[in-house]
Amino acid sequence: MTQTRFFSDCTLASMKKGVPDYGLVSDAAFAVRNGRIIWAGELAHRPPETRHATAERLGGRLVTPALIDCHTHLVFGGNRAREFEQRLRGASYEEIARSGGGIVSTVTATRTATFDALVEQSLRRLDALLREGVAVVEIKSGYGLTIEDEMRMLRVARHLETLRPVKIMTTWLAAHAIPVEYAGRPDAYIDEIAVPGLGQAAAEGLVDAVDGFCENIAFTPAQIERVFKAASSLGLPVKLHAEQLSDQKGALLAARYSALSADHLEYLADTDVEAFAAAGTVAVLLPGAFYTLKETRLPPIDALRHHGVDIAIATDCNPGSSPISSILTAMNMACTEFTLTPEEALAGATRCAARALGLAGEYGEIAVGARAELAVWDAGHPSELSYWMGGSPLYKRLSHGIST
Amino acid sequence: MTQTRFFSDCTLASMKKGVPDYGLVSDAAFAVRNGRIIWAGELAHRPPETRHATAERLGGRLVTPALIDCHTHLVFGGNRAREFEQRLRGASYEEIARSGGGIVSTVTATRTATFDALVEQSLRRLDALLREGVAVVEIKSGYGLTIEDEMRMLRVARHLETLRPVKIMTTWLAAHAIPVEYAGRPDAYIDEIAVPGLGQAAAEGLVDAVDGFCENIAFTPAQIERVFKAASSLGLPVKLHAEQLSDQKGALLAARYSALSADHLEYLADTDVEAFAAAGTVAVLLPGAFYTLKETRLPPIDALRHHGVDIAIATDCNPGSSPISSILTAMNMACTEFTLTPEEALAGATRCAARALGLAGEYGEIAVGARAELAVWDAGHPSELSYWMGGSPLYKRLSHGIST
Ligand SMILES: [Zn+2]
Ligand SMILES: [Zn+2]
Repeated sequence: MTQTRFFSDCTLASMKKGVPDYGLVSDAAFAVRNGRIIWAGELAHRPPETRHATAERLGGRLVTPALIDCHTHLVFGGNRAREFEQRLRGASYEEIARSGGGIVSTVTATRTATFDALVEQSLRRLDALLREGVAVVEIKSGYGLTIEDEMRMLRVARHLETLRPVKIMTTWLAAHAIPVEYAGRPDAYIDEIAVPGLGQAAAEGLVDAVDGFCENIAFTPAQIERVFKAASSLGLPVKLHAEQLSDQKGALLAARYSALSADHLEYLADTDVEAFAAAGTVAVLLPGAFYTLKETRLPPIDALRHHGVDIAIATDCNPGSSPISSILTAMNMACTEFTLTPEEALAGATRCAARALGLAGEYGEIAVGARAELAVWDAGHPSELSYWMGGSPLYKRLSHGIST
Repeated sequence: MTQTRFFSDCTLASMKKGVPDYGLVSDAAFAVRNGRIIWAGELAHRPPETRHATAERLGGRLVTPALIDCHTHLVFGGNRAREFEQRLRGASYEEIARSGGGIVSTVTATRTATFDALVEQSLRRLDALLREGVAVVEIKSGYGLTIEDEMRMLRVARHLETLRPVKIMTTWLAAHAIPVEYAGRPDAYIDEIAVPGLGQAAAEGLVDAVDGFCENIAFTPAQIERVFKAASSLGLPVKLHAEQLSDQKGALLAARYSALSADHLEYLADTDVEAFAAAGTVAVLLPGAFYTLKETRLPPIDALRHHGVDIAIATDCNPGSSPISSILTAMNMACTEFTLTPEEALAGATRCAARALGLAGEYGEIAVGARAELAVWDAGHPSELSYWMGGSPLYKRLSHGIST
């Protein structure tokens, strides 16, 4: 597409950093060429070179950057609905584990599912996100836990990109859990699977970033650091599941490795936020897991704000602790559970989420030079996106500047 | 339709009272004639008279009664997204009220919206429910607060039924709030608007049931009782918003009037549940309002269970305290916030919701003689309906036994 396309009769929420009130522009218009935004602003200031472009009127609708879900475990086999039910009928975690529940059941279901079955199940969850104006989805491995099964999960993730107009960012998360065959031998698992597998997966082009789960029920900071070192030697950025259930100082480890993001952070100490902030690492908050697990300890929101940390919001879409494939629900929960403002929630699912994926400037803002990945909403004001749950106010999405 | 239609290759969750485990039947089939279920059970037991019926295979999918949302304020003008935003930016309720927010703003927006605008806005919310397999929606007045505006809201509600394959149950809720023109004169409002308006609305056929908001910020039990007496004299069933924010003994008042339901009930005292239970009134729980208002006091779930009270679940869809048009989200919240089991949540949105609307035996169960209002799901087990949020697993809905 080398033709300039011109869109008018809309309100723009540019979500550009430092611009107040969502960067709202009324009576707005924008122009797109070669899949990039070449101009956006008030219609009255339309540049002369766009005068002959094909024009499309958007009926006064709201236009935002397309949304970004920057933390998901969207590829997995089976589901854990029966476990959800057992728990509500009073079963303990131990009883569930003894009856084959927990992450082990997802690992088994993921390993035994065919490639096509994984694609089909994952596609339903992806389509739910796309219907909410999402254009970029991060997907982690972490339910294979063998080199081949971890690579297969990321091949499924990459394959999704060929089936839908979406950008998929893949993350190597072999350091997610210790599989039964390595029970009691986490160091061996790191050295025999997580680290060598990363090299193989990276060689096949399956890895955009590297993640781990730093927690007393998963891996220690020292174990995670071995994975981070391997990532660094491959030139791959890192990120970390940190301080979800206890303070392991994982966020500070992530900061030392200039991580793209540290995610969850309920137990990040106020006193560590300054050091964390200095690295420029994005704080990815996951209110769906907080809600599902009925957590009560909030992330240090005020301290993060005070130190200017970029806050992203994501679904954490996964079969155990966040069975949610709705970024709008995550945004509502970010407001209701975490007291973010709707503007912070929208920045969290656009500009800040782009930064958390290393895509700053390309996605998540309506700015000249950025990709023309936009969402057009049946809404009068961007606060409505976080306010309402149920249905999707998406009118349409523009991908590469073209309606999808 | 006098022809018998036959459906096979499915799992049925009949949700019949007293039948354990959702009333699940594998390798199931069912037959429909004149919009009613004439047989349902194992395919192997197919009755001879259905052998020549047109057969449709459902691909092994799950079939449940279509869902019922038995408590909504779905018809209203405007939205309160900006108020949601103000609150999260730290504004107090007083500041919001002073800047024209709160229910007053919805009353103004509802009064000034045209009939067509109210229909259009309400239809979006209704469509979101229908995409989740809902076939029956209760809609209350309560944002008009003049006789004419209350009647107009119910005319909009009735009109929706002509636009979609859905059954709408209308509720007169003039005793919802005190309009500014009656500030400080709640008794006059009851006597001049709520009671005489009910007679007029009933005469126009606009009223299926009568409701009130019994709370220290709304109406006293004595005021509500005047409305209930008027309802009784018209032969109309009653229901009540009771014990949401404080214990006004509204549930006991409702029980004395053999109410269809008492709704919210967070502050219903354990010691009052036995007396409440004796009336057979349904307890309608509204976890979306609990979530949005960040309430911490739970309804007396165990006592309700112990005394055999039927528990229904609804969205409470409204612009202020429950901006939610997703019954599946309400079901998830009923499990996560109120610790209901997925089976209780599904009964709450089917059989028990039907009872709360006076539709027991007609809707909400897969039983011979019941209406063929069914939901066919891309799901393997009914627990999945409460477990996952985002997207809708609805494959299709059967209305009068015909695909919609
Ligand atoms: Zn995660
Ligand atoms: Zn209500």
